[in-house]
Amino acid sequence: MKIKILITGGTVDKVYNELTGKLMFDDSHLGEMLERSRSTLGIDLEVLFLKDSLDMDDEDRSLILSKCLESSVDKIVITHGTDTMIETAKLLGSKIKNKTVVLFGAMIPYSVNNSDALFNLGAALSAVQSKENGVYVTMNGKLFDFDKVEKNKVLGVFEST
Amino acid sequence: MKIKILITGGTVDKVYNELTGKLMFDDSHLGEMLERSRSTLGIDLEVLFLKDSLDMDDEDRSLILSKCLESSVDKIVITHGTDTMIETAKLLGSKIKNKTVVLFGAMIPYSVNNSDALFNLGAALSAVQSKENGVYVTMNGKLFDFDKVEKNKVLGVFEST
Amino acid sequence: MKIKILITGGTVDKVYNELTGKLMFDDSHLGEMLERSRSTLGIDLEVLFLKDSLDMDDEDRSLILSKCLESSVDKIVITHGTDTMIETAKLLGSKIKNKTVVLFGAMIPYSVNNSDALFNLGAALSAVQSKENGVYVTMNGKLFDFDKVEKNKVLGVFEST
Amino acid sequence: MKIKILITGGTVDKVYNELTGKLMFDDSHLGEMLERSRSTLGIDLEVLFLKDSLDMDDEDRSLILSKCLESSVDKIVITHGTDTMIETAKLLGSKIKNKTVVLFGAMIPYSVNNSDALFNLGAALSAVQSKENGVYVTMNGKLFDFDKVEKNKVLGVFEST
Repeated sequence: MKIKILITGGTVDKVYNELTGKLMFDDSHLGEMLERSRSTLGIDLEVLFLKDSLDMDDEDRSLILSKCLESSVDKIVITHGTDTMIETAKLLGSKIKNKTVVLFGAMIPYSVNNSDALFNLGAALSAVQSKENGVYVTMNGKLFDFDKVEKNKVLGVFEST
Repeated sequence: MKIKILITGGTVDKVYNELTGKLMFDDSHLGEMLERSRSTLGIDLEVLFLKDSLDMDDEDRSLILSKCLESSVDKIVITHGTDTMIETAKLLGSKIKNKTVVLFGAMIPYSVNNSDALFNLGAALSAVQSKENGVYVTMNGKLFDFDKVEKNKVLGVFEST
Repeated sequence: MKIKILITGGTVDKVYNELTGKLMFDDSHLGEMLERSRSTLGIDLEVLFLKDSLDMDDEDRSLILSKCLESSVDKIVITHGTDTMIETAKLLGSKIKNKTVVLFGAMIPYSVNNSDALFNLGAALSAVQSKENGVYVTMNGKLFDFDKVEKNKVLGVFEST
Repeated sequence: MKIKILITGGTVDKVYNELTGKLMFDDSHLGEMLERSRSTLGIDLEVLFLKDSLDMDDEDRSLILSKCLESSVDKIVITHGTDTMIETAKLLGSKIKNKTVVLFGAMIPYSVNNSDALFNLGAALSAVQSKENGVYVTMNGKLFDFDKVEKNKVLGVFEST
C-alpha cells in the first residue's frame, strides 16, 4: 500500500534557533520520525514548504490542493500547523472526493520534550489506511471529518462541532 | 466513545535498573504517554501485570481473554511484548467476536531514546476507533488481522502471512 | 561541602507554551536536573526570578549581588541567560572577593532536544568546588575569569578576551 | 588547552538492542555528547574498547595505563564502567604522577531517558582543566582522589572513604 506524506511545516517541524532564541524551521523531521516508527510502509515524503500555518496564504493552500489532486497515490497524509489546519481541510474536503486525506499537526514540536508529534503521526498513518475516501483531521487521539471540527484555542484541543 | 487499555508489560514499559544494569519493570508509562498525546478520549487504563511476554503463561493469557470478554467497553487496546503477541492475538481472535481489540507493543522501550512506543499507541488508538469488530495487531505502521501476521525475528519487524 | 544555586531564568529554564507557540517560563528545572545528575552534594536552590537576561535591569542585578554577599555559603552557582551573563559577572566580580561564584547558562533550553544545560551544570558544580575565591563563567566546556570573557553573538559561543 | 578522552565503554555507551532486548555496545556516544555540549575545547577522542567494566581484565587496564603514560597530552579524561572504575583508578594513580587524569561513568546510559552521562562529562572536563596532577574520579557531582573513594553498590553512589 502506497502512502504519500505532504509536509507543510507547522509546530511539528519547528526547532529552537540558538542564535536568536526563537523557533524557526530548518529541515523536516518526518524522515527521522518514520525511521523511529520502524514503519515498513511504502511512504513517499514531499516537502511543499515549511511554514507556520498563520503565515500560509491562498496560494499555499492551492498548492496543497493541486498536489493532492494530481497525486497518483490515493492515500495522503499532510503535516500542517494547527492554527489554520481546519481552513485547509475544508478547502481540500470541498474538492477531493476520490482519495483519503488525513491532516495532522502537533501542539509541541517534535524537537521539544513531551511532543505529541510522533503519536499523531501514528494516528494519521493508521487512519489513512483504514478510512474511506474523504478528508479528515486527527489530533488529540480523535479522528474528525473535515467539516465537523474546530480548534478550541483556549484549551489548545480539537473538538467536534 | 469509551476505550479500555489493558496493560500487560512488554518492551513498552521496560526501564533501566541502575543498580543491576538490567532492564526491569517498575510502573507503566501508559498514563504519561496518554498525557503526552494530549488525548481527549475517554480511556480507562488497567494494569493486568507487567511481564516480558516470553514469561507469560497460559494463565496470563486466560486473564487477558477474560478481561476482554467481561469488559463492558467494546473497544479495547492491549499493550503486549512482541515475542508472543501473536500467540495472544490468536487466542483472543478465536474467542472474541463482538468487540474491537488492537494489540501493540514496541521494539524500543518508551524510556529509551528513539522509542517507537508513542507512535504505536497513536496507531492503536486510531485503529480501535475505526475498525469493525475483530482482533488486530499494529506494529511498524501496519494493521494486521490477528491470523495473518508473524514476527520476523531476524529483522525485528511484523509481516503479513 | 555546602553549595548554593541561585536561579535567575535564562535559556536553561525556558519551555514551549503550546497555546501561544512561544517560549516562556513556568518553573525552574534545576531540581529535576540535580535529581538526574544523582548529585549527593548538599545543594540549596533558590529562585530569585525567571527572566530572559535581556529583560533584566539594574535592580535584578543588585538583587543577585546582595544574595551573593549575604549568603552564608561561600560556594555559589548562578543560572543566567547568556545575553547579559557577562554584565552580571562583571558586577559580581567587582564586589565579591571572599566567595567562589560560577555563572552558567545554556544555548538550548533543558526542555528542548540536544540541550547543553545539563553539561554546563556539571561543569559549574565541578568548578565551584575546585576554584579559589573569585567570579567565573562556564560555557562551551571552558571556565573563564569574569573579566576575560565575551560572548561571540555571531557564533553563539563564549570566548576569552 | 589540549585534552584527551580515552573511551573504554561502561554504562555511558550502552544501547538497547531491539533484536535481543538486551543492552549492548555499538558505537561511542562521546562525539555526539561533545557536539551537544557546544564544547570549544581542543579534544582528541580515542576509543580503546567498549566493554562492561565487569568484563575488563588486567590486559585492558594495562592498555589504559600505557595509553595514559605515552600520551603527549597531560590532561586525560577516561570513560569507564562504574563497577570497576575504582580498581582502574588505583592502578593509574599508583603509576601516573605528571598528568591530570579524571575518570567518569554513568548510572544510566546516555541513550536512556534521564541519563547522568552528560552531567558527568561536564564535571570531568571541568575538573581535568582545574586540578593539579593526579588521578581523580568524578560521579554524583563530587570529585574524589583515586584512593579515597568507593562505590556503594546498595545505593548506587560513589562515596568518600
